Amino acid sequence: MEKMIYFFGEGNLKLKNLLGGKGAGLNEMTNLGIPVPPGFTITTEVCKYYNEHNKKYPEGLKEKILFNLKRLEEKMNKKFGDFENPLLISVRSGAAVSMPGMMDTVLNLGLNDKSVQGLAKKTNNERFAYDSYRRFIQMFGNVVMKIEHKSFEDILEKIKETKGVKYDVELTTEELKEIINEYKKVVYEKTGKEFPQNPEEQLFLAIDAVFDSWNNERAIIYRKLNNIKGLLGTAVNIQAMVFGNTGETSGTGVCFTRNPSTGKNEFYGEFLINAQGEDVVAGIRTPIEIEELKKIMPKVYEELVKIGKKLENHYKDMLDIEFTIENKKLYILQSRVGKRTAKASIKIAVDMEKEGLIDKETALLKINPKQINQLLHKQLDDLAKQKAKKLTKGLPASPGAAVGEVVFSAQDAEEKSKQGKKVILVRLETSPEDIKGMAVSEGVLTARGGMTSHAAVVARGMGKCCITGAGEIVFDEKNKSFLVGSTLVKEGDIISLDGNTGEVFIGALPLVEPELSEEFKKILLWSDEFRKLKVLTNADTPHDARIAKEFGAEGIGLCRTEHMFFQGDRIVAVREMILSDTREEREKALKKLLPMQKGDFIGLFKVMEELPVTIRLLDPPLHEFLPQTMEEIQEVSESMSVSPQKLLEKIEQLKEINPMLGHRGCRLAITFPEIYEMQTQAIIEAACELKQQGLNIEPEIMIPLVSSKEELRIVKKIVENKAKEIIKKYNINLKYKIGTMIELPRAALTADEIAQEAEFFSFGTNDLTQTTFGFSRDDVGKFIPEYLEKDIFEYDPFQVLDRKGVGKLVKIGLELGRKTRKNLKIGICGEHGGEPKSIEFCHKIGLDYVSCSPYRVPIARISAAQANIKNKA
Amino acid sequence: MEKMIYFFGEGNLKLKNLLGGKGAGLNEMTNLGIPVPPGFTITTEVCKYYNEHNKKYPEGLKEKILFNLKRLEEKMNKKFGDFENPLLISVRSGAAVSMPGMMDTVLNLGLNDKSVQGLAKKTNNERFAYDSYRRFIQMFGNVVMKIEHKSFEDILEKIKETKGVKYDVELTTEELKEIINEYKKVVYEKTGKEFPQNPEEQLFLAIDAVFDSWNNERAIIYRKLNNIKGLLGTAVNIQAMVFGNTGETSGTGVCFTRNPSTGKNEFYGEFLINAQGEDVVAGIRTPIEIEELKKIMPKVYEELVKIGKKLENHYKDMLDIEFTIENKKLYILQSRVGKRTAKASIKIAVDMEKEGLIDKETALLKINPKQINQLLHKQLDDLAKQKAKKLTKGLPASPGAAVGEVVFSAQDAEEKSKQGKKVILVRLETSPEDIKGMAVSEGVLTARGGMTSHAAVVARGMGKCCITGAGEIVFDEKNKSFLVGSTLVKEGDIISLDGNTGEVFIGALPLVEPELSEEFKKILLWSDEFRKLKVLTNADTPHDARIAKEFGAEGIGLCRTEHMFFQGDRIVAVREMILSDTREEREKALKKLLPMQKGDFIGLFKVMEELPVTIRLLDPPLHEFLPQTMEEIQEVSESMSVSPQKLLEKIEQLKEINPMLGHRGCRLAITFPEIYEMQTQAIIEAACELKQQGLNIEPEIMIPLVSSKEELRIVKKIVENKAKEIIKKYNINLKYKIGTMIELPRAALTADEIAQEAEFFSFGTNDLTQTTFGFSRDDVGKFIPEYLEKDIFEYDPFQVLDRKGVGKLVKIGLELGRKTRKNLKIGICGEHGGEPKSIEFCHKIGLDYVSCSPYRVPIARISAAQANIKNKA
Repeated sequence: MEKMIYFFGEGNLKLKNLLGGKGAGLNEMTNLGIPVPPGFTITTEVCKYYNEHNKKYPEGLKEKILFNLKRLEEKMNKKFGDFENPLLISVRSGAAVSMPGMMDTVLNLGLNDKSVQGLAKKTNNERFAYDSYRRFIQMFGNVVMKIEHKSFEDILEKIKETKGVKYDVELTTEELKEIINEYKKVVYEKTGKEFPQNPEEQLFLAIDAVFDSWNNERAIIYRKLNNIKGLLGTAVNIQAMVFGNTGETSGTGVCFTRNPSTGKNEFYGEFLINAQGEDVVAGIRTPIEIEELKKIMPKVYEELVKIGKKLENHYKDMLDIEFTIENKKLYILQSRVGKRTAKASIKIAVDMEKEGLIDKETALLKINPKQINQLLHKQLDDLAKQKAKKLTKGLPASPGAAVGEVVFSAQDAEEKSKQGKKVILVRLETSPEDIKGMAVSEGVLTARGGMTSHAAVVARGMGKCCITGAGEIVFDEKNKSFLVGSTLVKEGDIISLDGNTGEVFIGALPLVEPELSEEFKKILLWSDEFRKLKVLTNADTPHDARIAKEFGAEGIGLCRTEHMFFQGDRIVAVREMILSDTREEREKALKKLLPMQKGDFIGLFKVMEELPVTIRLLDPPLHEFLPQTMEEIQEVSESMSVSPQKLLEKIEQLKEINPMLGHRGCRLAITFPEIYEMQTQAIIEAACELKQQGLNIEPEIMIPLVSSKEELRIVKKIVENKAKEIIKKYNINLKYKIGTMIELPRAALTADEIAQEAEFFSFGTNDLTQTTFGFSRDDVGKFIPEYLEKDIFEYDPFQVLDRKGVGKLVKIGLELGRKTRKNLKIGICGEHGGEPKSIEFCHKIGLDYVSCSPYRVPIARISAAQANIKNKA
Repeated sequence: MEKMIYFFGEGNLKLKNLLGGKGAGLNEMTNLGIPVPPGFTITTEVCKYYNEHNKKYPEGLKEKILFNLKRLEEKMNKKFGDFENPLLISVRSGAAVSMPGMMDTVLNLGLNDKSVQGLAKKTNNERFAYDSYRRFIQMFGNVVMKIEHKSFEDILEKIKETKGVKYDVELTTEELKEIINEYKKVVYEKTGKEFPQNPEEQLFLAIDAVFDSWNNERAIIYRKLNNIKGLLGTAVNIQAMVFGNTGETSGTGVCFTRNPSTGKNEFYGEFLINAQGEDVVAGIRTPIEIEELKKIMPKVYEELVKIGKKLENHYKDMLDIEFTIENKKLYILQSRVGKRTAKASIKIAVDMEKEGLIDKETALLKINPKQINQLLHKQLDDLAKQKAKKLTKGLPASPGAAVGEVVFSAQDAEEKSKQGKKVILVRLETSPEDIKGMAVSEGVLTARGGMTSHAAVVARGMGKCCITGAGEIVFDEKNKSFLVGSTLVKEGDIISLDGNTGEVFIGALPLVEPELSEEFKKILLWSDEFRKLKVLTNADTPHDARIAKEFGAEGIGLCRTEHMFFQGDRIVAVREMILSDTREEREKALKKLLPMQKGDFIGLFKVMEELPVTIRLLDPPLHEFLPQTMEEIQEVSESMSVSPQKLLEKIEQLKEINPMLGHRGCRLAITFPEIYEMQTQAIIEAACELKQQGLNIEPEIMIPLVSSKEELRIVKKIVENKAKEIIKKYNINLKYKIGTMIELPRAALTADEIAQEAEFFSFGTNDLTQTTFGFSRDDVGKFIPEYLEKDIFEYDPFQVLDRKGVGKLVKIGLELGRKTRKNLKIGICGEHGGEPKSIEFCHKIGLDYVSCSPYRVPIARISAAQANIKNKA
């Protein structure tokens, strides 16, 4: 530790890790000549030392603090603890990453029974002095001496009541003195100690309290929740106090250099006359809009706006500025990059580029792609959420929001929606039968299932809000109700879903509609200029494909044909196929599916025009298409005129202990080649017919779950033979590609061999994550939350691509694949394809594209651009 | 193709791939001066060309054949097709790997209506000449002209009947001529062509037939079944005929230079007087023991024995020799390394070393480790098996054999065995409740489950014969019977199991007891001299450990503590633990388990004395310990006085969609640390108490299913804290190690990080194979057989370690691990640890040890030695 303390001006913004955000900002502003009350910063390294050495200071710290205090006294021409002209200081925490309100701060330090008189005399404002002293005792008592806030509040309330006074400001000096006496009594009662009168003692106790607050519970939880890691500790800023509460010529406020809600380039903020900062935060008095300041103190306002511009030009971002006016003199207490809504972030970025303040790259980097979701879906009103009754929380399976009456079956959903009612479908878990019901619902809520359960996948495809795995729900289908704790929700009750957070609320919350502003469109176009990764979409229907294309998808990276199998009457033919005992019977059933599948592909090809369309052949195990519950079995048995016995037998026969690792993907085609033959026929016929109509389609057929070259070779042969047969029939020169998913570790490890057969690769990182970790996506709910909580994982590997394990395999697969085929087209089509951090990884290792669900396409475009910009630098 | 034909003597044994085994052998023998009938070999390359070029010869082949035929005529001083002194030849197949009887051969070629007369005159034996002609037409007609054998046999039988004759040899020349006429008629009727009289035409047709036979169905199947790959095709050997059927001074036979059944160093074999080779094979006349030849033709016998020794000295192995005597002159037609029993292979290897013929390394390489199983377990008598009625076939889950009465429940097994009956327990699948019943049964048969199902694992541990996954069985527990096709097997019926093949037979087959000969022990000791890999065992009980130690295990590489959880009353405490809702309740139940677990470990440590013992903490998901069927639930509910409702709820709650990828292994310890704490306490207390008694135990504690360093760090802490606490209590200086299984791809990929925490690695290649391939061991039965059949896999990856995928991960894991800890102890404890090919891989990449089930320890010792010997060379 070379330098433990930086007097403001000795440091700068680059020393953020060492000085904390606040400290670095104060130093930087001091250098810029901004009127900052002088002070000094004790580094985060000192905090680290303190916390690692059983709360001991490093050698010489105490002396250095006292030395800098002397400098501060000289600068302010006041003396700490002086009876005539006392220097008051604030002792504030401030880590390198903002953790608002999580750590401690003490203001007005240096006051005692004597110096308060000096302050009164010097400011000629006795009331102000005693009010400050009262505040100090209360804050110090709470923060440093750990006396609960309530003990002080009770006294304050009692005396206000006795005196018949409503607001603190109405209290007289005498009354304040009375309160101070009572406060001191409470301190003695609670701690057995007198309130410390020695300012130095006050100072060091306060510094310790700030250091200690780094590891208080709420700070630890906040860091965990916000994934803040690798910091040393908090810095401590010791700064001369300035007072906004000396009278009508003083005040304090917060302003933003632009509107943080809309992004509009207007000075925005609010202030209070005759108040300290805490009064603004506490919300006791209603602040005044900053425009008013122009009228009251035009010069101060002018200076503030000028400083704002100066800072904006310096930081090249919208800033959030805390200021205090003491007797018409303006002081800036803090400035930092301002938080903003998604909408504002886009407008500000685009405006600043227009103004020449920043270039496009910088503008793009200002966007938080995750926030973008807000702009694409309906949202629950934030304020209303805060006040609403939260019922439970599940997994945020599909973003957006929904409000409606609870229904418990797809049938009820259809009926009620026909009556014009908005409904929310609540199920234990959804199955193929529920699709129509889901389509007419506002949103879907299931008690079971994960982020990739049937409900989740289908809802995301539909762009419909969905919450899955709400485990607290005790589902009672028979009585059409469910229970969460002691709250009973019945059919017809209204609930609201927040698909972004997984929260469920009782009652109808107001919805905010999405909007795609011109600025947003501009940001997306800029993204396209700067990104190298192509962005494709995972879409199974023309509807999804159309949405994705509007969002800028450059093709379909993954069409999951099995989703088509669930639609409408098709499931009947699929089940016929599964129940068949011979190849002939199976082929007969498949023949019924053929025209439907073909129609699907024609639809998709038409929407995507001549953009690439990658179609994955059947992937899930066959038992997924059979009914699950006895009730469903009964139904299916009747509708198909198959005995329940036969159905049960087949279900039993197809049952698997670990279906994820079972008879699925290309393994199905090894045993039942006729399935892939039918699908190939549908794809190639669709392409041929469109080609006859002048549309140049070059379909890409993708074989799932390949684990070895030989497997792919055999399945490829099946597909090729059928394709050749059809192409010959149409007598057309149709080109097509056959590629494979790389979604098993062995496929990645033998990608050099597999690339001998595959014309393209698509990393299926969902399954690859499952097998690499040995995690069943459907079962990890029992332990992944604990893994995140115990810091075993930084992120849920199903959300953010695990670079060390799964990513390593992706890299191995890519390198081996390109060793065999130099120009092998390689992409990713797992959930990670729409997640910013994962997209950055994809860019870095040199993938050609990412493919994600339609609503994530804009996010992916921005993320891909950011990845390229960041990694160029 | 430089040289298409090798005249015998031009080639040698090293050209086996080119000349086939037979051709190379004939060339080699010619070089050694052994009396081989002269001839020449057409190479396998020619066969490949022929089969790849639509049955066309390479340019110049025909001319070269005719040229070499000329050389043969000169050498034999006979002329092909001559009317006076005709040269007869054989045209034989012969690939580089022996495929006995799978491909075609034609003898006596060159005979026709004219040359038969010449042969008669020259040999002065008309009957012999016409018998040869008859045989030729029959063989050529069948092999080349594709007329079914039966057509000829019918004629032969009819005439024999008419003439009142029993054996072929009793037929007169006239009768033979009659048969020849009938044969020629049949040829014309069946093919529309006359029997070819032109010897050259005969020759080329026969050569084509041999080439064609490379791809006949039975040859293809044979190659598939025996995993014969990478050959070019068959060679064709054209050789002068010699005749064992010219009269009483001629004969033919097969001999072994040592006894192929016992390995005894004695000349062994049998022969027929006045017969051709096919008569020996056909088994019509009973051959005479070779000893008799000594009496009949002492000089020939002496020469034969001398040649045998000469060949043995040359080949340094026991040989199988085919010979013919033509008028007291001995000809050797073939010699090759003789097939032998496991017992013989060991005796021969040890004897030859004693005789100075070979060194120990060579002796060891002569052992087929897989065959060794025969010597360690009871076997069904081979001959009896051939005659017995095979009921069905399952998976050979645990080797050995068993004969007994069928019972359908563990309870029945116990009762009947108390009555002194030998029983075989037949179950749909076994569960923990069945263990006692399994223990008293001779063998176990289950309709479901794989090679690593509960039944399989427990039976292998017990060294008990077990067949699992006998899918044809339709199980009817209620009526105590099962059905295979139309065969009903009821309680009390006797069946026989062959655990080496998975075959089930109706009735009691005779059993052959195992024996551990002195020679076997010697081989094992030699193995220890030459191997680098240590051989440890997977053992869960003192009983297993004792057996393994007797077989030479150098420690326990894997003790699966969960198997202990199933024994006796423990399961009750385990279930109590699982049914608990709070940590306190769980700890209470675990306290009951503690003394039992401790007792287990004391037992194991005592048996293994001071050899390393690696104990894996609980691995399977908790639901595996709960009852499965409603009947079991009822039972458990009563015995534990827990409502079935509560049981069902817990079962439902713990249910997993993919239990293989679920809440198990160290993941359990993250959520329920108290389980590992109890197990650690049991291990450390056991070790401390034995140390107090003077036994220096250093337990190795193994954490299963680790996917990241952080996971291991946290679980290690749990174990360490408990261990420290116990060691402190005993006040003893006990050392212990904490290591981990590497059984997930991510663990291998991040092994450098994991090695920061782990003091040793053990590759769990069972699970690693599951996750690397995405194969559920329990479900692959539906497609792996087809994968093997379609040549997608060379071996079942659960039997033989997959080097390209799983092996690559093992190698990555090893290299990364040793990068962090140079001397990291690394082994393997999956099923592959006892499989020879996999052991060779483990040796090559530099593992420290393999660990396998007790009965595989001898196999592993030999395999490890062979790996080292082979890879030194």
